[in-house]
Amino acid sequence: MVMDRRRFVQSASLAAGAAATAGVVRAAGAAQSRASLRVNGTRVNTHLKQLSEFGKNPQGGVSRVAYSDADRQGREYTMGLMRAAQLTVSVDVAGNIWGRRAGSDASLKPVVFGSHIDSVPEGGNYDGDVGVLGSIEVAQTLAEAGVTTRHPLEVVVWQNEEGGLWGSHAVTGPVTAQELAQVAWSGKSIRDGIAFLGGDPTKLDSVRRRQGDIAGYFELHIEQGGTLDREKVAIGIVEGIVGIARWRVTAEGFANHAGTTEMAGRRDALLASARLIEAVNRIVTSLPGRQVGTVGRIQAFPGAANVIPGRVEFSIEVRDLDASKIDLLGTEIREEATRIGKLNDTTFSFIVDSAPHKPALSHPALRAHIATAARQLGLTTKVMPSGAGHDAQNAALIGPMAMIFVPSVGGISHSPREFTTPEDVVNGTNVLLHTLLAFDAAGAPR
Amino acid sequence: MVMDRRRFVQSASLAAGAAATAGVVRAAGAAQSRASLRVNGTRVNTHLKQLSEFGKNPQGGVSRVAYSDADRQGREYTMGLMRAAQLTVSVDVAGNIWGRRAGSDASLKPVVFGSHIDSVPEGGNYDGDVGVLGSIEVAQTLAEAGVTTRHPLEVVVWQNEEGGLWGSHAVTGPVTAQELAQVAWSGKSIRDGIAFLGGDPTKLDSVRRRQGDIAGYFELHIEQGGTLDREKVAIGIVEGIVGIARWRVTAEGFANHAGTTEMAGRRDALLASARLIEAVNRIVTSLPGRQVGTVGRIQAFPGAANVIPGRVEFSIEVRDLDASKIDLLGTEIREEATRIGKLNDTTFSFIVDSAPHKPALSHPALRAHIATAARQLGLTTKVMPSGAGHDAQNAALIGPMAMIFVPSVGGISHSPREFTTPEDVVNGTNVLLHTLLAFDAAGAPR
Repeated sequence: MVMDRRRFVQSASLAAGAAATAGVVRAAGAAQSRASLRVNGTRVNTHLKQLSEFGKNPQGGVSRVAYSDADRQGREYTMGLMRAAQLTVSVDVAGNIWGRRAGSDASLKPVVFGSHIDSVPEGGNYDGDVGVLGSIEVAQTLAEAGVTTRHPLEVVVWQNEEGGLWGSHAVTGPVTAQELAQVAWSGKSIRDGIAFLGGDPTKLDSVRRRQGDIAGYFELHIEQGGTLDREKVAIGIVEGIVGIARWRVTAEGFANHAGTTEMAGRRDALLASARLIEAVNRIVTSLPGRQVGTVGRIQAFPGAANVIPGRVEFSIEVRDLDASKIDLLGTEIREEATRIGKLNDTTFSFIVDSAPHKPALSHPALRAHIATAARQLGLTTKVMPSGAGHDAQNAALIGPMAMIFVPSVGGISHSPREFTTPEDVVNGTNVLLHTLLAFDAAGAPR
Repeated sequence: MVMDRRRFVQSASLAAGAAATAGVVRAAGAAQSRASLRVNGTRVNTHLKQLSEFGKNPQGGVSRVAYSDADRQGREYTMGLMRAAQLTVSVDVAGNIWGRRAGSDASLKPVVFGSHIDSVPEGGNYDGDVGVLGSIEVAQTLAEAGVTTRHPLEVVVWQNEEGGLWGSHAVTGPVTAQELAQVAWSGKSIRDGIAFLGGDPTKLDSVRRRQGDIAGYFELHIEQGGTLDREKVAIGIVEGIVGIARWRVTAEGFANHAGTTEMAGRRDALLASARLIEAVNRIVTSLPGRQVGTVGRIQAFPGAANVIPGRVEFSIEVRDLDASKIDLLGTEIREEATRIGKLNDTTFSFIVDSAPHKPALSHPALRAHIATAARQLGLTTKVMPSGAGHDAQNAALIGPMAMIFVPSVGGISHSPREFTTPEDVVNGTNVLLHTLLAFDAAGAPR
């Protein structure tokens, strides 16, 4: 941790130095006044409260899954806010909402920032919403202050983040017919959902952007973990979004009578699986670092108290910023499975789950802008990975990316109990504002 | 194992000696001719084949669950065989079938022997059937040889053994209204099932027998485990039917995001459960003896690959002939659960599953008759526990009990692949015949 932080602080200083010499000198006076800009904290928190009415659930959170009526209503509300912030609003063929604001230099690529407003079933009021409403608040603050950036600005509301980053996927990669047929929580297919939101699933090719089409991408988001809250740090600077490897594991033994089969003669697939589950934890924690490994799903067959399980199916998931570390851990887990299987004549098979995600690293120069902005605002920071997936990992495919995290109280997310304090929402939004201004001044990294 | 066998052999010699002096001298000539009696092996195996037609399933076994049409048809067939064997057939109010044969001494209590013909869903052709058809074959052999025993003989076909020993339970203990309301595999309640078989569930009190109402109980059955087959032993002499303790265990941790929650901060209920499952195996095998412990059922909540399980529910079952050993293992498992829970701040709760069974020991004098009969027939024997439950454990509540096991090929049971060779069926039936004759001659043990 200390090492990473030191490395980050060094690169932050370098990048800030580079930015200072890059060409903002011409607007020294404007920079002075811009430095004192602050977002309207009451307004952004009021918007958060208002958005939480759409899909409100009895537990105090929202169930605003993508392609539901609540989703569409929340989007209408959001587009209203965007227009009030003097953004030019449109919905692309993939169903994403864009709010555009011209820059002073037409030769520059746009700076994109935003998040999502769809939720998981029985979700909370902060996941995604903070980033979207914070981004709109930044646009409105700039509009009210009469600030024109050099780069065009684009506030984006990605559709169906929770169901699989679909909106950002459509913009940054090819979408297959098979993918479009997948059924979302709403019960609609991705194809029908896109149409439901006003997109056109037959024209997705036209929405594609390629590497270099954007100057940079920023996303403000709640941490969803407990690190910032526990360590009383205001701002997380995301080093990158972890890669995910996921396997569907099957242990095969032999089902037999739990009363008549001696202990020594058993090929108990659940006993072998239990040993491997313990081993996953042991192997993952045997290396320094912030990698995680989880067994979240398990089923034993036939699944009766008086029958020795002959087959067990479970998931293994490993996440880290470093793909080679994921590979190493996967190899060690498989080797251990072979060893454990020999103990009671069971065998393990591993099937790689569809669509493992590669790690997506944020850009050091963009991280440096976040660090500088936070420091100037008097806020503490911590460089950290994002254990969760975000649209930012897709955005990283087409340009430099960085994310700003604000604390989640108790680390609780995907739950009606999800909570981020109004103060932290304001802090994150101000950091986003000043990060954008610094980036705009410095220009896209080479 | 050696110790047990030596002890058994000693008590067998003693019992045989006692029998020799007890009063069979008066019929030395008859005993001579009786010793050469053999059952009709072709006939009993033909009956097995014929019975397997009722409820025949495509996999080659039977699905003749209690209270199904196939069950009733199988019972009709069986009652026909009983009448052919000159037994006086009746169905009691609990739905059990009885085939009676008078003895020469009206003052003696009956000797009861039999088993069941109902099966599990997708069961095999030997579990229960061998004991019923073997018992009828013994009766027919005696009838054909003109042998009249001193004791009255009663061949019993217990109803719904597989669903919970219901027929023998009704004869040997009080049945509650709650029990009668339970729903069997057939979809019928126990109450309706009893009526379906020709019983009268409102008059169950009249069928009760008490301790001392029978001279003895014998049951021939397939082993259902692999010990006899593996060790090439012809006859198992059952020491007793193991007691069963079963718990419904719940591990409580905290469900959280598998990506954003650091390893150190996790309260992973599945990791804790895996450790306990491994510990159950370790604790159960840490003592000498033939006790078994099994975790057969498990469910993790919420049960998604990307969520750390916050709650896990699973079963733990321990079986042994010695109730105090079961208690000891249960205590050690709970203590280990407390220790394991402390490792990652999870808690385990144990709920005793309904109706744990106490061990039921067979009577040494009856076991001695089995040993003697087998020896005289030139068959190898092994003293062993029954890991599975049997009606004999209920019969033990009202009189001395013993069981004769024959090998299950590969130890497979409750499966269409269940198989016992025709030769082993004949061996077991001959042992039953001569055990009954020896018991009849010796009289009930004091």
